[in-house]
Amino acid sequence: MTTTLRSPLPTAPPGARVAWSRIAEPGDITAARLVAARGPVQALADVAAASHPGLARFLPRLEQLDVDQDLEAAARLGARVVCPEDEEWPTGLDDLDCPPHCLWVRGDVRLAEVCARSVAVVGARSATAYGEMVATDMAAGLGERGFTVVSGAAFGVDAAAHRGALAVGGTTLAVLAGGVDRPYPSAHARLIDRIREVGAVLSEVPPGAAPTRPRFLQRNRMIATMTQGTVVVEAGLRSGSLNTARTAAEHHRVVACVPGPVTSMMSAGCHETVRAGIAVLVTDAVEAADAIGDLGRDLAPRRRAAARPGDDLDETAARVLAALPVRRGVTVARLTVVAGLPAATVAGVLGRLELAGLAERDGQGWRCGAAARQPHHA
Amino acid sequence: MTTTLRSPLPTAPPGARVAWSRIAEPGDITAARLVAARGPVQALADVAAASHPGLARFLPRLEQLDVDQDLEAAARLGARVVCPEDEEWPTGLDDLDCPPHCLWVRGDVRLAEVCARSVAVVGARSATAYGEMVATDMAAGLGERGFTVVSGAAFGVDAAAHRGALAVGGTTLAVLAGGVDRPYPSAHARLIDRIREVGAVLSEVPPGAAPTRPRFLQRNRMIATMTQGTVVVEAGLRSGSLNTARTAAEHHRVVACVPGPVTSMMSAGCHETVRAGIAVLVTDAVEAADAIGDLGRDLAPRRRAAARPGDDLDETAARVLAALPVRRGVTVARLTVVAGLPAATVAGVLGRLELAGLAERDGQGWRCGAAARQPHHA
Repeated sequence: MTTTLRSPLPTAPPGARVAWSRIAEPGDITAARLVAARGPVQALADVAAASHPGLARFLPRLEQLDVDQDLEAAARLGARVVCPEDEEWPTGLDDLDCPPHCLWVRGDVRLAEVCARSVAVVGARSATAYGEMVATDMAAGLGERGFTVVSGAAFGVDAAAHRGALAVGGTTLAVLAGGVDRPYPSAHARLIDRIREVGAVLSEVPPGAAPTRPRFLQRNRMIATMTQGTVVVEAGLRSGSLNTARTAAEHHRVVACVPGPVTSMMSAGCHETVRAGIAVLVTDAVEAADAIGDLGRDLAPRRRAAARPGDDLDETAARVLAALPVRRGVTVARLTVVAGLPAATVAGVLGRLELAGLAERDGQGWRCGAAARQPHHA
Repeated sequence: MTTTLRSPLPTAPPGARVAWSRIAEPGDITAARLVAARGPVQALADVAAASHPGLARFLPRLEQLDVDQDLEAAARLGARVVCPEDEEWPTGLDDLDCPPHCLWVRGDVRLAEVCARSVAVVGARSATAYGEMVATDMAAGLGERGFTVVSGAAFGVDAAAHRGALAVGGTTLAVLAGGVDRPYPSAHARLIDRIREVGAVLSEVPPGAAPTRPRFLQRNRMIATMTQGTVVVEAGLRSGSLNTARTAAEHHRVVACVPGPVTSMMSAGCHETVRAGIAVLVTDAVEAADAIGDLGRDLAPRRRAAARPGDDLDETAARVLAALPVRRGVTVARLTVVAGLPAATVAGVLGRLELAGLAERDGQGWRCGAAARQPHHA
């Protein structure tokens, strides 16, 4: 078999990784294993030499390969290539069986740094108004707490998450399924520009590459592993965000889902994921930060209701209070029968209740005080 | 200390238990321990003899006691007394530290029988329209599956639960905090009548006893333990239904909570209870039955989305499908580059896709089939 190449093969790792990002589809396990075993340069030579029938499928693209052209296209866009060897590489990606060969990045933030405290906020494209509002609040709250919000720039929850982070001056990253020069969906071109200006837009496929369905699924594995945890805000039962959630869980990231009305199919995927034990339930950014962030730093307070008068009464006092009429006072003797307590106890408790505004004198008797005049049952 | 009694003390257990239900407040641990240790008859004699200072508080009510009068009042109401010795006794109540001394019951069903497959459906009195709808559906679905729905006849979730069970001809029990002759809230007098006609209305306090705040809390412990599990539909952070849920969990009953919008304070208690690990999340009666009912009989199917064309494709076929244009067909040679696969593989896959309606010929080329023309990303 003879191979006619359009341009000479790269001879150094960065160029070879760029070549692999062009010739292998994202998530291609054969390519990942070959590159891991042989290094990116030798792995390319293996393909060119048709050394194994399993490598033949890379040949059509290898023949069309032009790394310099790809790099020039990137340079025109102000995009850089980040490789696993680089300090900036988000090391969470190394947990993947098929990590990206390299990342094409537009934006000034250093990826490793901003991913060290980061959360994926993902969900349904066809989110409801509720889902968009919750996603915006969630991302804003996480942004305020110093988390980088990572998402996919899609309609619905993704866009709301980016916008929430942007609104509070937080850092946000958009991971695209196509090239970084191909904003998708095109209606979000301006949003993606804005994300690039303050955060970064990145992809594992070279400039010009189209966003295809398999690439969306593979893109999700990056969002799931470059972050410390994933929050799903609204997901139908077939939402791609559940794929992100499963990948995050498989790689021991925390997964958190936001509940919603059980009548909404847009929350069914969230509920099912909690029921399956894959996700914890969170209702806001404080709880998400608690689940995903650093122990201690991000601990959420246990939710408690505000205290009300009478909350701290012991059982005896509660019984006397319950026995007090609201309108006309009754005698201590009567209260001993109603409350089932001896007279001395009732008299002592009445003194305490009076001080708390929970009991008051009414002629010779006693009745409820102003502080106790509320519905008296739980 | 001399004791003047209004009537002679009962000399046999049923009468003595009736006496205890009059003189001891629900949940009184001293009374429960004394009756457990000495039997109800001797325990009454101990109180009358003022044998221990700790028993003095029962004296005021003991002096007023008239068991025959209480039994006559019950007979006029068509109410019966059910004691722990009776076959009809719901044995779940025996798990309590302070089980009721007896039950005052109106309604023809046998309690032990209907409680053998029963669920408490409880929640906020100030339920939202969403909560009432969900509670009605939940109770109806459980009723259809042969579960007795037990609740407290309160406003909001309780009433919706009873109504849902009634609507499908299910059995439902109302456990009242006051006497069975005192429907509370009075606006639910007709609902409580209807529950009595087809199920039962019961209380641990004698006819005429008022529903007081402590009695509501104690009533909840009965609902929690006479059932196999508790479903909470909407609960604020201080809802009494969370007290029912905690009691159920403490006694190793299953607790299930229905989620709702995170923006609704009426769902905050449900979410917090799931987060605390006390409750499982359920979204409908099938899931509640799965959590609470018999293994096997009530197993809920795992929720899955409906299948769509292309779902079952392997990775190779998915890549070819993603490479197919929607409009003008392209050649196999072009597809090998776009899909990154060898020509023989592409040709083989195209045959399979064509049979599935996912690919079709277009002149010399190939394009998407009708079954594949849908948004192509996840």
